[in-house]
Amino acid sequence: MTPTAVMLLSCPDQQGIVAATAAFIAAHDGNILHAEQHVDPVEGVFFQRVEFELDGFGMERDRIAEEFAPIAERFAMRVDVRFSDEPMRVGMMASRHPHCLYDLLTRWRTGELGCDLRVVVANHPDHADICEHLGVPYVHLPVTPETRSAQEAAVLATLRAHDVELVVLARYMQILSGDVVGAYRHRIINIHHSFLPAFVGANPYRQAHDRGVKLIGATAHYATEDLDEGPIIDQETERVTHRDDVASLARKGRDLETTVLARAVRAHLEHRVLVYGRKTVVFDG
Amino acid sequence: MTPTAVMLLSCPDQQGIVAATAAFIAAHDGNILHAEQHVDPVEGVFFQRVEFELDGFGMERDRIAEEFAPIAERFAMRVDVRFSDEPMRVGMMASRHPHCLYDLLTRWRTGELGCDLRVVVANHPDHADICEHLGVPYVHLPVTPETRSAQEAAVLATLRAHDVELVVLARYMQILSGDVVGAYRHRIINIHHSFLPAFVGANPYRQAHDRGVKLIGATAHYATEDLDEGPIIDQETERVTHRDDVASLARKGRDLETTVLARAVRAHLEHRVLVYGRKTVVFDG
Amino acid sequence: MTPTAVMLLSCPDQQGIVAATAAFIAAHDGNILHAEQHVDPVEGVFFQRVEFELDGFGMERDRIAEEFAPIAERFAMRVDVRFSDEPMRVGMMASRHPHCLYDLLTRWRTGELGCDLRVVVANHPDHADICEHLGVPYVHLPVTPETRSAQEAAVLATLRAHDVELVVLARYMQILSGDVVGAYRHRIINIHHSFLPAFVGANPYRQAHDRGVKLIGATAHYATEDLDEGPIIDQETERVTHRDDVASLARKGRDLETTVLARAVRAHLEHRVLVYGRKTVVFDG
Amino acid sequence: MTPTAVMLLSCPDQQGIVAATAAFIAAHDGNILHAEQHVDPVEGVFFQRVEFELDGFGMERDRIAEEFAPIAERFAMRVDVRFSDEPMRVGMMASRHPHCLYDLLTRWRTGELGCDLRVVVANHPDHADICEHLGVPYVHLPVTPETRSAQEAAVLATLRAHDVELVVLARYMQILSGDVVGAYRHRIINIHHSFLPAFVGANPYRQAHDRGVKLIGATAHYATEDLDEGPIIDQETERVTHRDDVASLARKGRDLETTVLARAVRAHLEHRVLVYGRKTVVFDG
Repeated sequence: MTPTAVMLLSCPDQQGIVAATAAFIAAHDGNILHAEQHVDPVEGVFFQRVEFELDGFGMERDRIAEEFAPIAERFAMRVDVRFSDEPMRVGMMASRHPHCLYDLLTRWRTGELGCDLRVVVANHPDHADICEHLGVPYVHLPVTPETRSAQEAAVLATLRAHDVELVVLARYMQILSGDVVGAYRHRIINIHHSFLPAFVGANPYRQAHDRGVKLIGATAHYATEDLDEGPIIDQETERVTHRDDVASLARKGRDLETTVLARAVRAHLEHRVLVYGRKTVVFDG
Repeated sequence: MTPTAVMLLSCPDQQGIVAATAAFIAAHDGNILHAEQHVDPVEGVFFQRVEFELDGFGMERDRIAEEFAPIAERFAMRVDVRFSDEPMRVGMMASRHPHCLYDLLTRWRTGELGCDLRVVVANHPDHADICEHLGVPYVHLPVTPETRSAQEAAVLATLRAHDVELVVLARYMQILSGDVVGAYRHRIINIHHSFLPAFVGANPYRQAHDRGVKLIGATAHYATEDLDEGPIIDQETERVTHRDDVASLARKGRDLETTVLARAVRAHLEHRVLVYGRKTVVFDG
Repeated sequence: MTPTAVMLLSCPDQQGIVAATAAFIAAHDGNILHAEQHVDPVEGVFFQRVEFELDGFGMERDRIAEEFAPIAERFAMRVDVRFSDEPMRVGMMASRHPHCLYDLLTRWRTGELGCDLRVVVANHPDHADICEHLGVPYVHLPVTPETRSAQEAAVLATLRAHDVELVVLARYMQILSGDVVGAYRHRIINIHHSFLPAFVGANPYRQAHDRGVKLIGATAHYATEDLDEGPIIDQETERVTHRDDVASLARKGRDLETTVLARAVRAHLEHRVLVYGRKTVVFDG
Repeated sequence: MTPTAVMLLSCPDQQGIVAATAAFIAAHDGNILHAEQHVDPVEGVFFQRVEFELDGFGMERDRIAEEFAPIAERFAMRVDVRFSDEPMRVGMMASRHPHCLYDLLTRWRTGELGCDLRVVVANHPDHADICEHLGVPYVHLPVTPETRSAQEAAVLATLRAHDVELVVLARYMQILSGDVVGAYRHRIINIHHSFLPAFVGANPYRQAHDRGVKLIGATAHYATEDLDEGPIIDQETERVTHRDDVASLARKGRDLETTVLARAVRAHLEHRVLVYGRKTVVFDG
């Protein structure tokens, strides 16, 4: 695999955007591997993801953003340029539930999740041994209602000390305040154990059982200050029956949670997600 | 296929129910084809569906309920006995949308849906020709806010005139009052075009689009006076993406609606559904 | 919905294709609504689908292919240009099974399937009445082993007399010879009632039952002379259990068949399918 | 959770089986929690799984089989009695691929997989550290074509030394000879990375890519001497597109493999699987 550049673009929709971007890449002998675009005709917004090979591209990677600036300016684009051989720096947060964390650790360890895992932060000590075994720094920051503000400051300091770009809440069961969410806007991925917007809030499996639904779900979304209201990245459901009690809903739900969270994290790491308003564009992987 | 009897039983959970029922059938040389049971340990309720062949059974079918009465009394059972060669009498109600109605008509015509279709009632004239073509009585009962009460009375009179046992709302877009719902308690099946309890009320596809969900759904449930709150019989979801506008959500949703409604109607017609509280037990088909 | 042009392109992969195509459209003030591309890096083939509005495009639609010819020549492209307001002329073929045919007829009648349905050809008379009711010409061409060759000639003549561009085999249970398949290369869509390549040939549901699989499937593919070997357009599976006998596999399978065939036909009608070798590129709808 | 007994029964179908079994349990004050049955009307075989509470049951657990023997004899039953608080002794076998093994280890460690994991046997040393970390004996038995027979003898000796009842092949990439398979008939679960019977043999993902399928699959089955021909326990599929190369099929397939294998192992551990001929009855969990 030779290294590639990914450009994520968004701007008001207008004629000539695709031509201008493609001409820029072609003019420097770039070989486009993937190009996907989307237009929201109601909002009038254009989105594009272009991935091209760096080998043979007639420009140092550091100069791409600068050289592209005139085009970006002409179309009033927001531009994000990333490189496939510069993996994203990730911090994971967990509480007691191990399933999402262990699943992500396995995917990271086997190289499936191409990222630079810097730190795991947890409000319980449970996962210290597995992280130590894997060589991942584990920071235990317990929290009580009284210490919440101080603990959040310590969380933020830890994430910053490890230069984290993306935070993955792997069933971290604490609500994050606006300070943390604001510092990592659209860079905190949470997994909620229901098919949002059904069953917001606490104990979604109990709510689902009480309502007698025939499917349960899981939702990966960016964390926002309004809990469970953030832009949705991925969702999935699974059939259940009258035979399932709350415990078996939770057991089946764990598999959904791990799958959906892993897919959403992967999409983010591959620079396939663009957020606008309360929605996402998720290009195919 | 030889004719069968189906007994649907529910009662407070206690020892010996299965043995008593099975002994009753065995004592009269009955051959059990299917027997499924369920216990809700929280509510302490026992449910059973037993299906056995009528050929060779040592009793006239008319006497089964009476002969079984002592057992039913001993366990405080609710008992419903049905026969596979006495198909249920069904009325369908529709508005403009044809997809659910046409799908059910096709399944009925090909014999897949084993029922006695007595009448189609609609508040629009659109489907009169297809029903005439198929030989199904079509009763057009238009409705306005002013005539609602009179129209509902006419609906009820029509259903009764055709001796209807089960009413299927095949995207009937009018809210039924308590009079109709009460007259057919747990015998009116509605299809709602969302994954309930998400997106109750009007325009669920628009709501889903505005929220940016990655799955849409459909829910078949028994109609109750609290709209969209009735016991759920079946649900299904389907993946959507940022490319889907409201119109394509509605198009994809139509396939979900037809599938889920057909499955729910089939389950009811096969006497596989038991309602308790706001929930259902749906035995496998 | 204003009319659009769709260009389907394929050629050896090389630099500058996207730029050249986009520049062509931009130079004539075209507004691109959708553009999707794919590169098969192993085969070295580039595929693209570009859809743009005809309103405001600075060229008569009849001249697009000609004006684009220099670009097509430069990249050795195969080019297909279609217009959204010129619906494809379709012929359907059926035998006894009604489910796929009725489903497609319903979708066509409600406008969901944007095509010009010219004729239904069948080797049984069963569906004549519904077609007459819908105003679709129905040509009954019975066939026996002895008359096969003459019947196929009549089939071909009928399709040609109705100027058919796409043939949909809606559970047409006869094998088509190379004459018919060759005349409509990659323009005959068949539905096979298994998850190909499992259970090729006759009685796939019986084969599936004998093998004890836990899923059944359906496959829509272009017909080729090697039966069940044609390029696959779409597939789907559904869970089954030990409780399903051959008849219930067939019943559940019918819903799969109708769904998968309708999706494949829709993809073809929207010019989203490109064939290469034994494979397809199916762009998202 | 109080301890339960599970009786797995199979016999030629005949009248009175359910009644006799239920009467036996009721006569000793047993409380049935679950009872599922199935009749294969073609083969004329009856299957049943009955689970009842041991607390309050009027008999020592050791005497159940003996006391039930007259009934078993009368109906020519095969009977298997198991107890929920006597978890099955399991050995896992792996090669290089970690995903299935790690997933099962996680489920075992968190208690989701209620079994007594005795040993992991592998022909590579890769997973020794994680097993050591978790306190599971790891036996590294490398194999070459020349040493195959001796290695298999060592495998068998290891499994026997640890008194293993169930062997899980967690992507163990060696073919087991009839000696091993025969010693653990219907007690070795394998995961094959295709939707069997499609793509038997080596490199199923490459085969799938070459054929251009739109779904990939995974199959958990009991190992038999005829490779990939054993009774199927569970299967699942996942959508893929023209964008997926062999590597991404393999990546998506890994999630299928872990899910399907875990479900199959769970079904076996909960005594929900009955084998007959080349098929399985898998009662719902």
